[in-house]
Amino acid sequence: MTELRVHNFSISLDGYGAGPSQDPGNPLGVGGELLHEWLFPPSGQRTEADERFMALGAEGVGATIMGRNMFGPVRGNWPDESWTGWWGEDPPFHHDVFVLTHHPRPPVQMAGGTVFHFVTDGIEAALDHARAAAGGRHVRLGGGASTVQQYLRAGLVDELHVVVVPVLLGSGERLFEDLGVALDGWGCVEFTPSATVSHVRLRRL
Amino acid sequence: MTELRVHNFSISLDGYGAGPSQDPGNPLGVGGELLHEWLFPPSGQRTEADERFMALGAEGVGATIMGRNMFGPVRGNWPDESWTGWWGEDPPFHHDVFVLTHHPRPPVQMAGGTVFHFVTDGIEAALDHARAAAGGRHVRLGGGASTVQQYLRAGLVDELHVVVVPVLLGSGERLFEDLGVALDGWGCVEFTPSATVSHVRLRRL
Repeated sequence: MTELRVHNFSISLDGYGAGPSQDPGNPLGVGGELLHEWLFPPSGQRTEADERFMALGAEGVGATIMGRNMFGPVRGNWPDESWTGWWGEDPPFHHDVFVLTHHPRPPVQMAGGTVFHFVTDGIEAALDHARAAAGGRHVRLGGGASTVQQYLRAGLVDELHVVVVPVLLGSGERLFEDLGVALDGWGCVEFTPSATVSHVRLRRL
Repeated sequence: MTELRVHNFSISLDGYGAGPSQDPGNPLGVGGELLHEWLFPPSGQRTEADERFMALGAEGVGATIMGRNMFGPVRGNWPDESWTGWWGEDPPFHHDVFVLTHHPRPPVQMAGGTVFHFVTDGIEAALDHARAAAGGRHVRLGGGASTVQQYLRAGLVDELHVVVVPVLLGSGERLFEDLGVALDGWGCVEFTPSATVSHVRLRRL
């Protein structure tokens, strides 16, 4: 059975998955880029553990789902077709990506095999589309926090891999909030610290 | 200059410093004992890093301040003098301990040099008393979360050492909440993972 998995979801020590005030210059909100320094270290050299977890985020994955805020800073109706994500002409997905939105838009074909599809009929429909597109491989669930929370509350997530980054953001979007009993019975199946962050894999126990 | 420091404050992956529903059988609330397994591992064998941080919590410390809920589960007026803390006849402090409360009570002398004093005139008075009692050594600030938050908001804390434990509590008291701008300018000065937890020392940068 293929799984729906969250990989490499970075949160600050104070619990935020993104800083406040996302805009085109701050995809992860103000200060949020600190959450991804472990992925793009100033030294250019990832640690072995970080490298392994980064690779796991693509291994056996055939489709991705993400919230609209992970796709871009545009809110409300799409004013035009000009916004095509944060990732340039050749995004790092190389497969079908399903963007949750209330505002329809035709698919966007990018270089390297990434196609952005805009899903307006809810998270379960998006998962159905993604599973079909993944062709027997796993579906990766991207961010932001509220998208992950929706899937967790619906009981649809198989694995949640969180990266705790020892920085303080002070405010922003918490990952572990408004989850009710969604994570009852879940626990840590792997704790692997690297030199700069802690990786925690959570699953139903 | 002596410092006011929080040592070994354990929080769950979802941010809680204690679970819900504290009572005499659950000093840290329901599930909260998981936060201290790194200190009292089932194997009986602490890792070297954990041992070092545990020892740091006593090194050069001459007095302790704690909130009433860390001292015990009794709320409101003290019905009698029978509650003398969670720690038995010979508590592990071996110095003066100042318990924040709204309800006066005479000091309690325990074995091993621990004396519990009950301070009713606020956090700054408690700190003055503790500094005087510490005789040139540091003052350690215990929990719970709301006590630490009060001192952080008042700008009185020099160091906050947090231990991130990869467990989920689901609800309880968050450490990083209602802090406003209290931690603006603070950051990580040490990140040391052990086999089971991550130690993060935070100070003003």
